[in-house]
Amino acid sequence: MKIILIGAAGTLGRAIENELGARHGIIRAGRNGADVKVDIRSIVSVQEMYAQVGKFDAVVSAAGNLHFGALADMMPEQYAIGLNDKLMGQINLVIAGQGLVNDGGSFTLTSGILGHDPIRGGASASMVNAAIDGFVKAAAIELARGVRINSVSPTMLIESAEAYGPYFRGYKPVAAAEAALAFSKSVEGAQTGKTFHVG
Amino acid sequence: MKIILIGAAGTLGRAIENELGARHGIIRAGRNGADVKVDIRSIVSVQEMYAQVGKFDAVVSAAGNLHFGALADMMPEQYAIGLNDKLMGQINLVIAGQGLVNDGGSFTLTSGILGHDPIRGGASASMVNAAIDGFVKAAAIELARGVRINSVSPTMLIESAEAYGPYFRGYKPVAAAEAALAFSKSVEGAQTGKTFHVG
Repeated sequence: MKIILIGAAGTLGRAIENELGARHGIIRAGRNGADVKVDIRSIVSVQEMYAQVGKFDAVVSAAGNLHFGALADMMPEQYAIGLNDKLMGQINLVIAGQGLVNDGGSFTLTSGILGHDPIRGGASASMVNAAIDGFVKAAAIELARGVRINSVSPTMLIESAEAYGPYFRGYKPVAAAEAALAFSKSVEGAQTGKTFHVG
Repeated sequence: MKIILIGAAGTLGRAIENELGARHGIIRAGRNGADVKVDIRSIVSVQEMYAQVGKFDAVVSAAGNLHFGALADMMPEQYAIGLNDKLMGQINLVIAGQGLVNDGGSFTLTSGILGHDPIRGGASASMVNAAIDGFVKAAAIELARGVRINSVSPTMLIESAEAYGPYFRGYKPVAAAEAALAFSKSVEGAQTGKTFHVG
């Protein structure tokens, strides 16, 4: 398969490349993508990425920023960061790619554990992650030509524990390599409309 | 209790007023609100509403628009309608009201069944409804002074079946009066961080 991997340079992206790259061709995309540069917040940038890449079988997204902050302090501008980036950025990949992906292809987006298991400071993350999982359920029943869509919802990664551990006390971290397995299940399996929880 | 009811003029809003108005003082708010005018898409408008109302015990929102359309046709602009209105509009009520509501007060938002049980044309609705339910889980653990937050997730209302029935084949509709009970449970009960599913 020819797989476009967004966020290829990140911790999760590198683990996904390790897992899927052994069996498939990976196009590494991202803000400073090794193969293709893309800013997923812009539908035009996403369209340009697809034009550059040509035919493909799968999109795997391990990209998307959002703002962490106390509920009492966050204003609409802070929520907008996650809505424009992690949420609509990943949805842009589907909007622009659904007509281009090969028959039987797939989209796999990344949400996260906070969508259902919240922490302090994570109101935007919970909103965005739940929105991604909700979108995936709905999009799956409308995609044509056997195209599938799933999300992967990982807990904190072991590789991120030094930076984020204090915010995730009591959460059992998983290795990025373990989270990457869920992306393999989504891309190489046959399920659709699912959220694969990891951790 | 003094309860601000947003979307008071709608089908669901009127049923909520019938249910809660028997025991509490209702401030009817909305785009053409009988008591207070507010455009929830604007945080400034929401702040002005709170300034006008003074102290209050609960906010109940039965407001929020979004776009229905085929997944293949919807562009970012169509998704933005629901993100700005039904999602961030209701979140604006919490952002601006969390410091003003009386101790032990509550916020009750409206999501909807499509958040977990999708239909064709409902990708934006599924995204937005799931986002609201996700936000509520997270906000509940940060609200101070015993302030609570829940969402009510109704299926199609009997009163809306003539307009929306063709899109919701096989969904058992509920009366708006039955959905209104869930708002009573949220406002007058003690639970927080919950989504009350109706239907």
